[in-house]
Amino acid sequence: MKTDLTIALDAMGGDFGPGTVIPGAELAAIRHPNFKFLLFGDRAKITPLLDKYPRLKARAEIRHSDVSIGMDEKPSQALRHGRGKSCMWQAIDAVRNGEADAAVSAGNTGALMAMSRFILKTLPGISRPAIAAIWPTLRGESIVLDVGATIGADAAQLVEFAIMGEAMARCLFGLTKPTVGLLNIGVEEVKGIEQVKEAAKFLREMNLPMEYFGFVEGDDIGKGTVDVVVTEGFTGNIALKTAEGTAKQVATYLKLVLNRTLISKLGAVLARGAFQALRDRMDPRKHNGGVFTGLNGIVVKSHGGTDALGFATAIDVAIELVRNGLVAKIAEDIAEMNAVMNPDVQVAV
Amino acid sequence: MKTDLTIALDAMGGDFGPGTVIPGAELAAIRHPNFKFLLFGDRAKITPLLDKYPRLKARAEIRHSDVSIGMDEKPSQALRHGRGKSCMWQAIDAVRNGEADAAVSAGNTGALMAMSRFILKTLPGISRPAIAAIWPTLRGESIVLDVGATIGADAAQLVEFAIMGEAMARCLFGLTKPTVGLLNIGVEEVKGIEQVKEAAKFLREMNLPMEYFGFVEGDDIGKGTVDVVVTEGFTGNIALKTAEGTAKQVATYLKLVLNRTLISKLGAVLARGAFQALRDRMDPRKHNGGVFTGLNGIVVKSHGGTDALGFATAIDVAIELVRNGLVAKIAEDIAEMNAVMNPDVQVAV
Repeated sequence: MKTDLTIALDAMGGDFGPGTVIPGAELAAIRHPNFKFLLFGDRAKITPLLDKYPRLKARAEIRHSDVSIGMDEKPSQALRHGRGKSCMWQAIDAVRNGEADAAVSAGNTGALMAMSRFILKTLPGISRPAIAAIWPTLRGESIVLDVGATIGADAAQLVEFAIMGEAMARCLFGLTKPTVGLLNIGVEEVKGIEQVKEAAKFLREMNLPMEYFGFVEGDDIGKGTVDVVVTEGFTGNIALKTAEGTAKQVATYLKLVLNRTLISKLGAVLARGAFQALRDRMDPRKHNGGVFTGLNGIVVKSHGGTDALGFATAIDVAIELVRNGLVAKIAEDIAEMNAVMNPDVQVAV
Repeated sequence: MKTDLTIALDAMGGDFGPGTVIPGAELAAIRHPNFKFLLFGDRAKITPLLDKYPRLKARAEIRHSDVSIGMDEKPSQALRHGRGKSCMWQAIDAVRNGEADAAVSAGNTGALMAMSRFILKTLPGISRPAIAAIWPTLRGESIVLDVGATIGADAAQLVEFAIMGEAMARCLFGLTKPTVGLLNIGVEEVKGIEQVKEAAKFLREMNLPMEYFGFVEGDDIGKGTVDVVVTEGFTGNIALKTAEGTAKQVATYLKLVLNRTLISKLGAVLARGAFQALRDRMDPRKHNGGVFTGLNGIVVKSHGGTDALGFATAIDVAIELVRNGLVAKIAEDIAEMNAVMNPDVQVAV
C-alpha cells in the first residue's frame, strides 16, 4: 500500500472551474496533510491561482490539458471530443493507471459517468454503476442510490445497489451493520413495482451479510429510517431534487414570515444564532458529493454550482472512501454474494 | 341542473371515522350553505355526534350500513367483502346513481380506488384513472398527478394525465390556460425515460388546447414552475412523500435550533406570529384531498389521519370540482383530443 495517497482533480469542471477547484483543494489539503493532488487542466489558468495557496502548491502537481468538457455536452459527444486529451478524461485515467487513488470533478455528470465507466470499467459481478448521494436526515446521514446514473433497474441490479450502498455506509459512517431499505410506495409486501418486490424477496431470502430492513417510503428518507435507501435512478433523482426544492421552499417561507412585522424581525435578530445553526444543518455544501459506485476506482461528482467549501466536501468524501477501501469492500461483498447465490434463489432478470 | 348539490361522505373511513368526518362535515356545511350531505355508516355511531352539530343535521341524511372497510384490507378483498353493502361502496354508488354529486372518504386508498373504478368506470377515452394531489408551492398551488393510483404509465396515459390535470387546474385555480410540465430528470429533450420523451413529443406536436411547458425536474414542483406536473404513480407517490418528509425534517431542525439557547428561545417567542404563519402555510390539513380523476364522477380521498379541519378541506375540494364541472371538462377535452388526433402523430403504446 502506498503511504502517500493522491487525489486527481478535474480543475476545469463546474460552473467556476479552477476558481472553485483550487481554493477547494486548499481547504482539503489543510484537513488532510498526507494527501497529494494532481490538478488536470489549463496550466495558464491554474498557476496564478495555485500561487495564492502555498500549502496546496507544495503538494500539488499540474497536468496540463487544453481540452475541457462543456456542461451541456452530451455524454457520447464528450467521449468523442474529450477522449484521451481532456482534463476530465485524464483525471479519471490517473485512477486507472494507479497515479491517483480517486478522482473528483464538478463537471458534466453524464460525461463524467460515461468516461468513468469507459476508463475504469465496472467491477466483476456489477452490471451497472450507480450514483450514490449522501442525504442529511434527522438521525444524521443516509446513502441514497441510484440518484441518476441510469434509468430503471431490474431486481438483480437493485440488489447490487444495496450491496454497494451498504459498503459505502460502512466506509463513510463507520457502521458495522448498516440497515438497508428498498424505496417503495407502501411498506406491505404486496405493494409496489415488480422489480422492487423481487429484489425484496431476494434480500430477505438470501443470507447476505446485510441488515435488510424492508420497504421504506419517501418520507422515511428524511427520517433516517435506514442507513441505505435503494432505488432506480429516475425515481432517486426525482426524490433528491424534490427534497432540495422542498427545503428551499420552507426556507423561503421562513424568510417571508419573519419579515412581515417589526416584532418578528426583532425575534429573528435574537434567534440569529439558531437560524445560522439551521442554515448550517441544511447547507447543501456540507452534503456535497455524488459517489460513482460499482467501478474499478473511486470517482466523486461535486455539484457544478458549489463553492470552494462545497468542493472541499466532495474531496473529503473521496478521501474517506479511499481510506476505508470502498472498492475492495464492494468487490468482496459481490464475491460473497456470488458465493452464497444458488440456483434456487436466483433472481429472474 | 340540480339546485341543491349533495356530497356523499364515507362516515366510517379514516383513522377516527365519524369522530373526524362529522365535525369536518359541519365545518363544510357552514362554508357551503347550499350543499346537502349523505352520511354513509353506522347510524348508532353517527347519530349522537350529529346531534351536536345542528347546522349539519338540518342538511344531512344518514344512510345506515354496518359494513366498513379496514385500513389494511387489500383492494381485491375490500371489493369482495364490501361490495354493495359497505358504507364506502354506497357513498360512491350515490354518485353513480345521481343522488350525490361527489363522494369523499378518508378510508383505505386502494379499496376506494378499486371501488370507484368498478362503480363509476373510467370516462370514455381514458384508459386509467389517476390520483391528483394539490401541492403547495412558492407561487401558490399546483396539481401533481398521478401520485399513486397505478404504477407506470405509457406515453398515451401520461397525455391523458396532462389533460385531466389541466382541466382540474382550471376548475380549482380558476386559470384559463394552466401550464403543464412533464416530470423528468433533466430539461433537455434527449433526457429521460422513453415514455416521458414520447409524451413530450406528443404534447408538443399535437395542437391540444393546452399550454405545454416542457420537462420539469423535482425541484420545480415546489417552485411552482408549472400549474400541472405530470408523472406516473410510483415516482409521483415517492416525490409527494419525500416532500412531506423533508418539510417535517426542516420543521424539526427549526424547533431544535430555537430551543438551544435562552436568547434564541426569546427570539422565537417574539417571532411567534411568524412561526404561526409558517405553520399555517405548511399545514397539511390545508392541502388535504387527493382527487380521483378520469372517472364518471368525482371522488376525493382525504388523508386517513387528518382531523376535522383537514376533512373539511377535502370536502371543499370536492365541492369546488362539482361547482366547476370537472367531469364534463375532462370529457370535453378528451373528445377534443380524439378529434385533433391524426394517425401521423399517434403515440406508440
